[in-house]
Amino acid sequence: MLNRVRSAVAHLVSSGGAPPPRPKSPDLPNAPSAQSAAPPGAPRSPPARAGSGSAAPAKTVEARASFSRPTFLQLSPGGLRRADDHAGRAVQSPPDTGRRLPWSTGYAEVINAGKSRHNEDQACCEVVYVEGRRSVSGAPREPSGGQGLCFYYWGLFDGHAGGGAAEMASKLLHRHIQEQLKDLVEILQDASPPPLCLPSTPGAPGSSDSSHLVGPQSCWSSQKEVTHESLVVGAIENAFQFMDEQMAQERRGHQAEGGCCALVVVYLLGKVYVANAGDSRAIIVRNGEIIPMSQEFTPETERQRLQLLGFLKPELLGGEFTHLEFPRRIQPKELGQRMLYRDQNMTGWAYKKIELEDLRFPLVCGEGKKARVMATIGVTRGLGDHNLKVCSSTLPIKPFLSCFPEVRVYDLTQYEHCPDDVLVLGTDGLWDVTSDCEVAATVDRVLSAYEPNDPSRSQKFGQATSLSLSILTSKRRWTCLTQRSMMRNQRAELCSEQVTN
Amino acid sequence: MLNRVRSAVAHLVSSGGAPPPRPKSPDLPNAPSAQSAAPPGAPRSPPARAGSGSAAPAKTVEARASFSRPTFLQLSPGGLRRADDHAGRAVQSPPDTGRRLPWSTGYAEVINAGKSRHNEDQACCEVVYVEGRRSVSGAPREPSGGQGLCFYYWGLFDGHAGGGAAEMASKLLHRHIQEQLKDLVEILQDASPPPLCLPSTPGAPGSSDSSHLVGPQSCWSSQKEVTHESLVVGAIENAFQFMDEQMAQERRGHQAEGGCCALVVVYLLGKVYVANAGDSRAIIVRNGEIIPMSQEFTPETERQRLQLLGFLKPELLGGEFTHLEFPRRIQPKELGQRMLYRDQNMTGWAYKKIELEDLRFPLVCGEGKKARVMATIGVTRGLGDHNLKVCSSTLPIKPFLSCFPEVRVYDLTQYEHCPDDVLVLGTDGLWDVTSDCEVAATVDRVLSAYEPNDPSRSQKFGQATSLSLSILTSKRRWTCLTQRSMMRNQRAELCSEQVTN
Repeated sequence: MLNRVRSAVAHLVSSGGAPPPRPKSPDLPNAPSAQSAAPPGAPRSPPARAGSGSAAPAKTVEARASFSRPTFLQLSPGGLRRADDHAGRAVQSPPDTGRRLPWSTGYAEVINAGKSRHNEDQACCEVVYVEGRRSVSGAPREPSGGQGLCFYYWGLFDGHAGGGAAEMASKLLHRHIQEQLKDLVEILQDASPPPLCLPSTPGAPGSSDSSHLVGPQSCWSSQKEVTHESLVVGAIENAFQFMDEQMAQERRGHQAEGGCCALVVVYLLGKVYVANAGDSRAIIVRNGEIIPMSQEFTPETERQRLQLLGFLKPELLGGEFTHLEFPRRIQPKELGQRMLYRDQNMTGWAYKKIELEDLRFPLVCGEGKKARVMATIGVTRGLGDHNLKVCSSTLPIKPFLSCFPEVRVYDLTQYEHCPDDVLVLGTDGLWDVTSDCEVAATVDRVLSAYEPNDPSRSQKFGQATSLSLSILTSKRRWTCLTQRSMMRNQRAELCSEQVTN
Repeated sequence: MLNRVRSAVAHLVSSGGAPPPRPKSPDLPNAPSAQSAAPPGAPRSPPARAGSGSAAPAKTVEARASFSRPTFLQLSPGGLRRADDHAGRAVQSPPDTGRRLPWSTGYAEVINAGKSRHNEDQACCEVVYVEGRRSVSGAPREPSGGQGLCFYYWGLFDGHAGGGAAEMASKLLHRHIQEQLKDLVEILQDASPPPLCLPSTPGAPGSSDSSHLVGPQSCWSSQKEVTHESLVVGAIENAFQFMDEQMAQERRGHQAEGGCCALVVVYLLGKVYVANAGDSRAIIVRNGEIIPMSQEFTPETERQRLQLLGFLKPELLGGEFTHLEFPRRIQPKELGQRMLYRDQNMTGWAYKKIELEDLRFPLVCGEGKKARVMATIGVTRGLGDHNLKVCSSTLPIKPFLSCFPEVRVYDLTQYEHCPDDVLVLGTDGLWDVTSDCEVAATVDRVLSAYEPNDPSRSQKFGQATSLSLSILTSKRRWTCLTQRSMMRNQRAELCSEQVTN
C-alpha cells in the first residue's frame, strides 16, 4: 500500500501540489502493505538525539535545511527568506492573486521567535479525488471515472525536534487517507448498510449478508450495525497509522526527522471529520456559538494511559522512571516518609510510604505547558518521533506516544449556517495566547466588516459552503497575538505584535 | 490495615448495623497492610464457576442461602420470606416506624423474577465517625474525640454470580473509607493546602514545605497543588481497592462468592462524592434539571481499555480469544476474505483480511445488554469476581475487571436547592426500564403531592438537607416498572407490574 502512496506522492511533488490526474486503471489490490514490508521486529536505524538533526547524507540534510513552506503560500525565493527571518517575523498568508484555496480558506503563519532554526510547522489544503479500487461484488472497476469520490482536506502539522515529520505528513497524509478510502467508494455511495465482509479476490463470492451468523452464544445473537460514518473514521485512523509506519521506515532515507502533531479536517459526503493527534485545536464558530471539535493530548490529559502502559510494561521505563506520579521531586533523605502519589487508576491523591524505587524520575511530571513524558516531550500523540530518546539515555519514548487521532464528526446537513460561520484550526501557540471566545469575537468583528463570501461558492457546495475554514498556525514563543482579522483572502489583514518575555 | 477493618466490622455485625463506638485509642499505624499480607503471586483457591455457587463448606453455604437483606429494612422472619418470594415479588421498603434513615432517605427493592435464587443486591446507609489517627506533625492524637469527622454514606451493591460480594461490600466498604480518611482528619479541617509529605513515624520531622524542591529540570520547577477534595477522592479510590483485595483474601473463608457493582455516595464537609464501579447510575434532580453523577462501565464503554490490555498482555487471552472486535462471528470458511474490525486504538471500523487467529472468540462481543467480556460478564468494573472463569475454561476474567470507581464531586454549597431536589441511585434494572427524565417527572409528581420534608432535617444540616436521597434497586428481569412514587418513608408508595417477555 505504501508503494502506491509513494508513487502518488512523487507525482504530487513534481506537479507542485495539484491533485494528480485520475489513474487510468485501478490499483493492484495485492500490492505489498506497509505492515508486510516492515515486520515489527525489523532492526531500527541508529538512534538520533531529539533535536540533534539527522544522521543522513549531508546533501539531503542541506536540501531540508533550505526550509520549505506550504506550496499554497506561493513564496518566491525572497519571500521564503523573509518567512525564515527570526528578526522580522513577517506574517505569511496566501497571495490575493493566484489560485484560491477552496471554501474561502484563510491561512496565516509566522516563524517562532528563536525556538528552532526554521519554522517546523507545515500545512496542507487539497481537494482529493478517490477512485474506487473495485466494486463491492469484487469485480474490478471499469475506468469509467464517474463514480469516484471527492474529499476536501485541510491539515495542520506542528513540528518538533526537526521539520521532516511535519513536511512528510503535509505531503502524504491525505494520500494515505485517499488510499484507505479506495475500498469504500462504492459502499459510501450506497444507502444500504455497509457489508460486514468483502470477498478476498475480484469475482469471488462475498458474504455480506447475515445468513452466516453463528448462534448459540447470546452475545452473538445479532450482528453489529456499522455506519458509513464509522468507516470513514476508521479510514482516517488507519491512514494516521500508515503515515506513522512510513515515517518509521523512511526515517533514514527520507529524513523524516523529528515528530509533529497532526490536526486534519476531511469533508466528505456532507460531513466534516476532524481528526486530532496532539495539542492543536479545532473549533467551529456557528452564529457566535463555539463548538469544540478536538481535545488536546498532553502528558496531563493522557496521564492514566501513560501510567498504565508503564505499569503493564515496566521494561519500557528502563529502571530510570517510575510510573507513579508525585506532586514534586522526592529527596533521598525523605525515604520512609509518606508522600502524596497517584497511580494509573487514581484521579485523586493519597499518601504512600516512600520506597527506593519512588526516587526514580516519574514517567509523567510537571504541569501545564511544562508537563513532560520522561522529562522530554510535552505532547503525547502525533506522527514520527521514532528516534526520540530520553535525554542522556538510549531509552526510546516512542512506545508511550500514540499516532492515533481522536476523530469528531460534524454533520453539515443538520445545521443552519450563516456566511460568517467558520472552522478554526490552530496549533498550541495560538491557543496559548488566545481563548476560544476571543477567536469567536474576532470572527464576528472581522467578518461583519466585509461582504459575504463569493456566492459562486454556495452554488457549488450548497449548505456546506456557509462554513468557512481558517487555519492559523503559530508557535509557543509567539506570546501575544493581536488579531485584527483572520482571513487574508477575504481581504482582511492579520497583524501580530511580539511581546518581550 | 485490613485487620483494623475486620475488627470494626466484627463489631458492626454484632451490633446490628449501628456505627461502632469511637475507639478509645488510636489505631496502630504499623498494622500489616492488605498488600503485604497477600502478594500478587499468592496461590489462588480452587476456581468456582460463575453462578454455580461456592465450593465452601455446606454449612456456611446454607447460612448464606438463608438470604439476608439490608438491616435498615428491619425485616421480621416472615418479612424476609416475603422478600424472598419470587411469585409475590413484594416491594420492600423501610418501615414508617422505627429509626429514620438520614436525609429523608427512601429505599425500595424487589426481588428479580427468577434470575437468581435470592436477591443478590444489597444496600447500606450509615453515618460514620472518623477519628484521626495522628496529627499532621506526627504526634499521636489525644483521644479527645472532639476533632473527628463525620461522613454520611449510602451504598448500592448490585450482586451477580452469588450474593457474597455484595453483602461483604455493604458491610465493609464504608469501614475501608473510614480507615482511609483517618490520616486526613486534621488535614481536611485545615484551610491551608495539604502537606505533600508526612513524617513516617509519630514525632519525626515532616517535609511538608516547598524548600526541598529539586531544581534544574524545567518540568519540576514547581510543585503540584493538591486539593482537599482530591484527597477524599483518593481515599475513596483506595478504599475500593482494599475492599477488593480483602474479598480476594477471604473468598474461601468468608464466602465472598460472586461479584458486585458498587455505587456509593459520601457526603463530607459540604461536598457529595459519588463513586461508581459498574453499571448502576446516580443522578441529581435539581429543580427538575437532571445532573448525571456517574457513567456506566460496560464491555461497550470500556472496549478500548479491555482491548488494550488484551493486546499488551496476550497471555491473558489464553489463546482462546482475540483482542480484535468484529461485528459478527467469523466462519472458518471466510478465511482470507476481508471483514470489518476494530482494534484498541480505533473508534471507527475498517476491513482486514481474515487470518486464522481472527477465528478466535473476540474478547469483547455483543451489543447493549448482551455485550460481554470473554462471553461471560456484562459489567467491567466492580468488586469481587476473583473466582470468575470463562465458561468451560480455567481462564480467569478478573484481570480485565477494574475495582476502581469513577468519582464525581458535587459541591452542595455552590447551588440553591429546594426541598424536592433528590439524588437518585439505581441499579441497571431500574434504568433499563426508566429514563432519567421519567425519574425526574416522578420526583416532581410525587413530592409535590406531599408536605415538604421534616423541618428538623434542615435545622441539622443547613443547605445540604435540601438534597434528599432515594435508593432504588431492581434487577434486569424486572422488565417494566410503573412508579407511582419513589419514597416510601415520605408516605408514598411504589408499585410494580411485571410484564411477560
